[in-house]
Amino acid sequence: MKENKYDEAAFFDQYGKMARSIGGLQSAGEWPEFEKLLPDLAGKDVLDLGCGYGWHCRYAVEHGARSAVGTDISEKMLAEARSKTADSRITYIQTAIEEIDFSPESFDLILSSLAFHYVEFFEPVCARLYKLLRPGGNLVFSVEHPIFTAQGKQDWVYDDQGRKLHWPVDNYFLDGRRETLFLGHTVIKYHRTLTGYLDPLIHAGFSLQKIIEPKPSTEALPRDESLHEELRRPMMLLIAAHKAPLAQST
Amino acid sequence: MKENKYDEAAFFDQYGKMARSIGGLQSAGEWPEFEKLLPDLAGKDVLDLGCGYGWHCRYAVEHGARSAVGTDISEKMLAEARSKTADSRITYIQTAIEEIDFSPESFDLILSSLAFHYVEFFEPVCARLYKLLRPGGNLVFSVEHPIFTAQGKQDWVYDDQGRKLHWPVDNYFLDGRRETLFLGHTVIKYHRTLTGYLDPLIHAGFSLQKIIEPKPSTEALPRDESLHEELRRPMMLLIAAHKAPLAQST
Repeated sequence: MKENKYDEAAFFDQYGKMARSIGGLQSAGEWPEFEKLLPDLAGKDVLDLGCGYGWHCRYAVEHGARSAVGTDISEKMLAEARSKTADSRITYIQTAIEEIDFSPESFDLILSSLAFHYVEFFEPVCARLYKLLRPGGNLVFSVEHPIFTAQGKQDWVYDDQGRKLHWPVDNYFLDGRRETLFLGHTVIKYHRTLTGYLDPLIHAGFSLQKIIEPKPSTEALPRDESLHEELRRPMMLLIAAHKAPLAQST
Repeated sequence: MKENKYDEAAFFDQYGKMARSIGGLQSAGEWPEFEKLLPDLAGKDVLDLGCGYGWHCRYAVEHGARSAVGTDISEKMLAEARSKTADSRITYIQTAIEEIDFSPESFDLILSSLAFHYVEFFEPVCARLYKLLRPGGNLVFSVEHPIFTAQGKQDWVYDDQGRKLHWPVDNYFLDGRRETLFLGHTVIKYHRTLTGYLDPLIHAGFSLQKIIEPKPSTEALPRDESLHEELRRPMMLLIAAHKAPLAQST
């Protein structure tokens, strides 16, 4: 049974107070790096897995996508997404990532922002995404970084004065369930290693294009003291992968 | 000035006592995974950067390579390599990795085991290696994992009873010099992020084939209790990259 944490009212309300929930893509620190990984969207059919409020779907059609389908397990998320969307090119569907069901080669781009760490078994998902992409298509996604998810608590180690000493890594090679504290709630996430993200992609047939660990920009750092701690450990991993185009006939 | 730690007698002696120095490839925990990344060696010209005792050079010619060149900054290492080698297909050259000098497209395979974390500037090295490879050639290397090198001390955090609590990560995005403790000596290594290893490869023209974090095999774990701690944090990163073959004329 997949957890549907975002349909719990108290958690959903907390999520709504996050900067990225209010400000959208421009308030997500990793967005400039994520945006760079996206291909030209003109005329593309786009699938967004774990679409949340629908920011990426709207971005896609605003940048020329022919269609965008957003999926999310949470009814509340999709209600919010629909209330923010007035564009017939966008469709929202309630489903878990593991259970998406579309015809093969339906999409030119599949993207996913911070959702795959809720997925327990990544290999079948990769195989399915590969089939859903047209030849030449792209997969671009972000997840919490394996350094961030390994130990489970997702918190720093502090000294007696409450200062952050370092980020703890433990149980790195023990893939699987972690009970994390997120927005004051216990949330189930799934840790996997870097290899655990990349090998299933390669095995499914993808070629790896880019692997980025986003960090605060040198412009942002002087403006916001709190960003300096983001230099101490990576929080996210961005991956761009590619399905080869059909070989040209000669 | 590149550090030439291995030519310091006391350090060189300590290195000689490591299991991998005595037993060679079969005593290096990561070797089974490294070996899987190697292409068919038959007829290949091979370059091994930071060749140490020459184990990989000898392995290459024993598996059909036409030639193998091993380079190392340490005269003592190369003396040991030469004393262990009786094969005219193998040449050893004393040079720092940053200063290797061969004709373009001289090699089919470039490999390097646990040496690139001694290199301060990786981007120019990647560009040079790309030029040295023939089209269709392969680059296979291991380095200490960014999780292992980030904080600098390369040691666990312990509790009052000396038990290992977790592995500390800090200053992850601050690339550069680290004074590490290795074999009882202070050794200068250079930390870079995962992105810091992969982006220069992509920028140089390589495509990424495999990225592996080796871990103890399920067969080895029951035999050796000490291996269990190797599941707690990754120590090494193995990367296989590829230079595209020339496009076939039609």
